[in-house]
Amino acid sequence: MFRRFVYLTTVVVLIAAIVAACGRSKEEAAPAPAKADAAAAPAGNLPAAAMQIAQARGLTPDDIDAALKTYTPSGKLDEYYMFASGGHSGNLIVIGIPSMRILKNIAVYTPESWQGYGYGSVESEEVLDEGNVKGVKIRTGDTHHPALSETNGDYDGQYVFINDKTNARVAVVDLRDFETKQIVKDPNVISNHGTTFVTPNTEYVIMGTQYATPLGWAYAPIELYKEKYRGVITLWKFDRASGRIKPEESFSIEVPPYWQDLCDSGKLASDGWGFCNSINTEMATGGVEEGKPPFEAGVSQRDMDYLHIFNWKNAEAAVKAGKAETINGMRVLRMKAAVDAGALYLAPEPKSPHGADVTPDGKYIVVAGKLDPHVTIYSIDKIKKAIADKKWEADPFGLPVLNFDAVKHAQVELGLGPLHTQFDDKGFAYTSLFLDSAVAKWKLGGDDPAAYQLIEKLPVQYNIGHLASAEGDTVSPDGKYLVAINKWAVDRFAPVGPLLPQNLQLIDISGDKMKVVYDLPLGIGEPHYAQIIKADKLKPWNVYPKVGWDPITQAPSKFATKAGEEKVVRNGNNVEIFMTAVRSHLTPEHVKIKKGDHVTWHITNIETAIDATHGFQLGGYGISLSIEPGETTTIKFDAVNDGTYAYYCTEFCSALHLEMMGYMLVEP
Amino acid sequence: MFRRFVYLTTVVVLIAAIVAACGRSKEEAAPAPAKADAAAAPAGNLPAAAMQIAQARGLTPDDIDAALKTYTPSGKLDEYYMFASGGHSGNLIVIGIPSMRILKNIAVYTPESWQGYGYGSVESEEVLDEGNVKGVKIRTGDTHHPALSETNGDYDGQYVFINDKTNARVAVVDLRDFETKQIVKDPNVISNHGTTFVTPNTEYVIMGTQYATPLGWAYAPIELYKEKYRGVITLWKFDRASGRIKPEESFSIEVPPYWQDLCDSGKLASDGWGFCNSINTEMATGGVEEGKPPFEAGVSQRDMDYLHIFNWKNAEAAVKAGKAETINGMRVLRMKAAVDAGALYLAPEPKSPHGADVTPDGKYIVVAGKLDPHVTIYSIDKIKKAIADKKWEADPFGLPVLNFDAVKHAQVELGLGPLHTQFDDKGFAYTSLFLDSAVAKWKLGGDDPAAYQLIEKLPVQYNIGHLASAEGDTVSPDGKYLVAINKWAVDRFAPVGPLLPQNLQLIDISGDKMKVVYDLPLGIGEPHYAQIIKADKLKPWNVYPKVGWDPITQAPSKFATKAGEEKVVRNGNNVEIFMTAVRSHLTPEHVKIKKGDHVTWHITNIETAIDATHGFQLGGYGISLSIEPGETTTIKFDAVNDGTYAYYCTEFCSALHLEMMGYMLVEP
Repeated sequence: MFRRFVYLTTVVVLIAAIVAACGRSKEEAAPAPAKADAAAAPAGNLPAAAMQIAQARGLTPDDIDAALKTYTPSGKLDEYYMFASGGHSGNLIVIGIPSMRILKNIAVYTPESWQGYGYGSVESEEVLDEGNVKGVKIRTGDTHHPALSETNGDYDGQYVFINDKTNARVAVVDLRDFETKQIVKDPNVISNHGTTFVTPNTEYVIMGTQYATPLGWAYAPIELYKEKYRGVITLWKFDRASGRIKPEESFSIEVPPYWQDLCDSGKLASDGWGFCNSINTEMATGGVEEGKPPFEAGVSQRDMDYLHIFNWKNAEAAVKAGKAETINGMRVLRMKAAVDAGALYLAPEPKSPHGADVTPDGKYIVVAGKLDPHVTIYSIDKIKKAIADKKWEADPFGLPVLNFDAVKHAQVELGLGPLHTQFDDKGFAYTSLFLDSAVAKWKLGGDDPAAYQLIEKLPVQYNIGHLASAEGDTVSPDGKYLVAINKWAVDRFAPVGPLLPQNLQLIDISGDKMKVVYDLPLGIGEPHYAQIIKADKLKPWNVYPKVGWDPITQAPSKFATKAGEEKVVRNGNNVEIFMTAVRSHLTPEHVKIKKGDHVTWHITNIETAIDATHGFQLGGYGISLSIEPGETTTIKFDAVNDGTYAYYCTEFCSALHLEMMGYMLVEP
Repeated sequence: MFRRFVYLTTVVVLIAAIVAACGRSKEEAAPAPAKADAAAAPAGNLPAAAMQIAQARGLTPDDIDAALKTYTPSGKLDEYYMFASGGHSGNLIVIGIPSMRILKNIAVYTPESWQGYGYGSVESEEVLDEGNVKGVKIRTGDTHHPALSETNGDYDGQYVFINDKTNARVAVVDLRDFETKQIVKDPNVISNHGTTFVTPNTEYVIMGTQYATPLGWAYAPIELYKEKYRGVITLWKFDRASGRIKPEESFSIEVPPYWQDLCDSGKLASDGWGFCNSINTEMATGGVEEGKPPFEAGVSQRDMDYLHIFNWKNAEAAVKAGKAETINGMRVLRMKAAVDAGALYLAPEPKSPHGADVTPDGKYIVVAGKLDPHVTIYSIDKIKKAIADKKWEADPFGLPVLNFDAVKHAQVELGLGPLHTQFDDKGFAYTSLFLDSAVAKWKLGGDDPAAYQLIEKLPVQYNIGHLASAEGDTVSPDGKYLVAINKWAVDRFAPVGPLLPQNLQLIDISGDKMKVVYDLPLGIGEPHYAQIIKADKLKPWNVYPKVGWDPITQAPSKFATKAGEEKVVRNGNNVEIFMTAVRSHLTPEHVKIKKGDHVTWHITNIETAIDATHGFQLGGYGISLSIEPGETTTIKFDAVNDGTYAYYCTEFCSALHLEMMGYMLVEP
C-alpha cells in the first residue's frame, strides 16, 4: 500500500478550490433546465413567428406536423426504445422514439473502443473469446434479429438477445447496464438466421440455421449436399436468475438442408409451437462458375417452399427421454426422432418466404412469400387438426408435409416483395414490400378468411427490409409508431461517398392514414430487424450497485481496490497493479516495470456519481477501457518494449482531466 | 476462367423476372417522394391541428421554434456537415446540421466491421499497420482535433486530418469517399494533443505533443524529467496531389517538457506563425503513491504557463539549411537551433489554458485559461514588436519568454473554466465555460482593448468541452450555428445504463440571443473538437470512378476482375481467387481449397449504381468487408481449419440477397 501524499499548505488550498469547483457530482453542478417551468404553448394557432421559420425552411404543413410529433426538447425523454440489430457491424443499436436519436450502440460481437469492449479488458475479451471458432479469434459478426426477453408473451425489459448470422452465435445483453454478458456458439452449424426469437416466458432462445452445412463444422463435398448437409433449430435454454444461456441444458432439432429463414415463437393459442420458413427446398447447390444455375436461380425454382412447424415442448420431452444424440456436446434430436415425437412438421408456403410472424393472439401465422405478391395466413387450429387428421405426405427426409389447403386460412395480395409483418392494437397488420418500397397496412379478419384485406400502401424511401411496430410482435402491441427499416437511402441525405447509410423511417400509425414523420440516416450498421419497447419497462442502473463491481458476474469483484489501498505487487517477472481512478487522478501515477514483465493491471473507478465514467488508454500497447462509476476492470499484457509510456483518462471528466495521467516506465 | 452457366428455359424466365423487378438501379426503383410537389406552408399562423400536437407533447413556444428550425424532411439535405472527433472511439463522426443526424462514422484508428475496415481487407490493414508501434499492433486511438484542409485559410472540402492522442499519430481522410487513406506515427514522441491544425494552404498539418517523454520512444527514469523528457511541434508536410503526408519532408521543433496543449495556426496577419499553449510549466512529475502531489495539483501551482509561439517558415528555412538533427528518421530542430532561427518564443499565459484560437483576421490569439476566469487576447503585432524589441527573459531551456504586458492586448472575464473559443461573422467570439456549463458570447474589440466585452452567457447541459461554430475557425466564419460539445448528459436522455452518451447541443446564434435548439445524444464516441463546413463545398463521389477501383491508391486496381473473368489460380499451396459481386450472386460460388492453403482472395463489386454496395463475411474466419460500387478489395488468410464455410453478401442488396452466397469447402 502506498503512503498517502502529504499536501503542502498552498497545495491544499488549490486542491480544495478545484474540488469545490469541479469535484462535485454533476447532478449538483447541473443548472436547472431553463425551460422546465416554462408554460406549454397556448391553445389556438401557432404564432406567426413559428410560421415564418417554417416558410423560410420550405416546410409543408405535413412537415410541420412531423416536426412537432418527433422533436424532443432537452431533458424530455423518449417514449420508446428501439433495439435494432447492426447487421455486419456486429452490434445492437438503441434508438429513442419518437426522436429517432441513437442512444447507445451496444458492442456485442465486434470490439468497440469507446466502450472499452475488446481492447484489452480481460472481462470483455473473455466474452468475445467464447465465440471463437476452432481457435480462430472472431471479432466481427452479422447481427440480424434482436429478441427482448418476455414474460407471458410481453417484453419484460430485462434482457435482449441477438444472433450472429455468420458464425451461428447467440449473445446475451443485460439491460441493467446495456452490456454484453455472454456469447454462445452452436457447435454444429456455421450460419444462423431465424435467430433470436424467445418462447413466451423466455424459457428458450430460438435459433434456426440458414445455410446448411455438414453438422459439426465438418467438411463434405458439395456433391453430398442432400446426404450430408443439414440445418438445425436450436433451443438455447435461458436461465433468468444467472442471466446466462446454459448450453448443457440446450438442444437442437435436426432439419433438412432447406435454408431455414425467419422463425417466430408461438404464444397463447400456439404456445409450445414455433415456426420457421425456408427458401431452398430445391436444395440447390450453386456452382455458377461451372455452368450451373447460380444460387439466386437455383433456389427460386419451386413455387412452394416449406414452413417448418415445431413443437418445442414435445421436443424437450423427447430429449429428456433420451431420444437425442450428442454431437460436439450438443444434444441433437435427429429428424426421425423429432418426427416420432410429434415435434416436427412441414407445410407448403409460397415461393421463397421471408417472415413467419405470429399474430398477437397466437392463432395465426403470417408468412410473407417474397417472390409472391401475397401474405399467406395459417391457422394454428387448422394445423393442429391437420396433424390430428394426419393430412400429410412425406418430404424426401420423411418429414410430414401437411396439406396446404388444410392449414391455409387466408391470403391477401399486397404487392411486390412482401417480407415481414408486424401488428398494432387495432387489429391491423403491417407488411414490408421490398420491391414496391412500401408498407402495406391490412386488416386481420379473425375467423373469416374473406375479412382479411389490404387497407393502404405507404411509399417509403427506399427498399424496406424489415419493419417494427411498438411492441408489435408481443401479445399486446401498442400501435402508434412503426419504423420502416429501409436498406437503401440513395438521395435522402447529404452525400458521404460511395458507402451510404440506411434510412430508418418513423411512421405515425396512430391515425387513419400512415404518415412518414422522420428519416434517420443509419451509418453505423445495417439493421435487419428491431423491437420497440415502452421505455418505462426498463430499469437500468445509472451507476453500479457497489464500488468495485465486476460487470460480467454482476457481483463485487475480487480485484476491487479502495482509495488508499492501491499497490504494485511484484512476483518474479509477474507484476500486479491495483489502481484507483477518481476525479482527477489515477493512483499510482508511476508504474515502474521491466521489459519482459507480465503485467496484470486492475483499475477500480471509485466514483459513485452518475456519468462519472473514466476512460483509460495506454500509449504503444493498444489498450482502451471505459470504466463506469463503481466498475473494476483488468488488463493483462507483456511489456514487450521498453520505453516511457503515458496512460491517462480518456473521458473528459473534470477541469483537470488532462492532468489525470501517469507514466509507465519500462526499463530495458 | 469459368464457363458461364447456361440457363435452362424456365430459369431464364425466372431470372428475367427477378432482374426486371429488383436488378434495376435503385434510382429507377425509387418512387418519387410523395411530398416533393406539395406546397410549402401557407402564410400566417399554423393550423390549430399543429398546435394540438404541440400541446399534447408539452412543447413550449420555444420548443416549437426549435423543432421547426431543425426538422429536416425526407430528401431535404442538411446545410452543413460537422466533422467531430470520436475521442477514444478512435474515429471521426460526420453529423448533419441543422438536423443533427449522424451521417457517417468514419473509421480511422479502430476497425469498423460495417465499413469492412480492419477486418481482413488488405488495403485497410495496411493503413492501420502504418500506425503500429514497435511491432505492437495498435487498433485503437483517441481522436481529438479534426482539421479540414484549407485554401487561403478557408475550408476547401478536400481532406480532413485527425490525430490520435494516445500514440502521437495523424491520419488523412479523403473526402471524395470519406475513407481513411494514411496513418503516420511520430517516431519520437508518445502522445499528442494540439493536433491536427493546418496552415492556411495546408502546406503542413501541425502536431503538438501533450505528455512529455524522452525523444525516440526511449526509456528514462522520471527523476531525469527536466534533462531527458521533451515535447515536439511536428510540421507534417502534406502533398495535396497524392493526398499523402510525406514524413521525409516533415520536421519537428523540439520544445520543453511543458505538456503542450492546444495549438492553432496563424493566418492572414499572422500567416507563417503558429501557437500552442501549455499546462505543465511546473514540470511536475506526479507520484501521488510516493507522497508527492498528484499531477492535478503539481501541474496547477503556477499562476502563469507559457504560450508557445513558433514561426514555421523560419523553422522550415532552418531545416532546409541543415540545422536539424535527424532522430529516428525525423528531422528535429533542437530548441537552441529553433531559437537561433527566430522560430520559437514563449509568452506567459494565465493558469493552465486550454484553447489558443486565432481570430478570423489573424490579428489576435485568444487564450482561455481554464483555471482563470478570463480569456486573454494577444496581438500578433505586439508579439512581433516584442520580438523585434527583444523584450524577453530566458526560460530554463534558453527560450525567450516575451514580456506579458508587451504582448497582451486585452482580457475579458467570462466565468469559470473557459476552454475554447470560436468566432462568427458579426465580430463575436464564443467561449466554452466548462465549470459554469455555459457558452459565453463576447465582443471582439479590434484595436481597442476596452471594447472587448462579455455580451451573454447561455447555460448548456452539461460540462461543455469544446464548441464549434459554422466555419468558425476560418478566415470567414458563417455564424448561424454553434454546437456545444458537452461532456456529460446526466439526465438529458432516456437511461442506457452506467455509460452515458455525450450531449451535443445545437445553438442558434443567428439572432440577438443564443438559443439551444437541439440535444443530440452521442453514444458512439466522445467528441473533443469539431469543424463545421458548408455542405456545398464537398463533392463526394457516389460510386467509384471506374469499376475495379482501389480506394487506397484512388486508381484502378491491378486485381480488378470483370464479369466472365473470374478464376481460381492455384500455385502449390497458394490459392488466388478473383471474384465478382453483383446483384444477386458472387462468382465463384464454390471455393474448393485444402487445409493449410495460403489464400489470397480479390473481390470486385462490378455494380455502377449508387448505393449498390455488397458486404462480405466468411464464417469461421473473422472477415468482414464492405465493397462499394466499383471497388476491388483483397483478403488474405491461411486455411487453418478444414470444414464447410458459408460466405455471403451482408448488405441487403436485392430481393434475392439471401441467395447471394457461396461455400468455401476446405478439405482436410
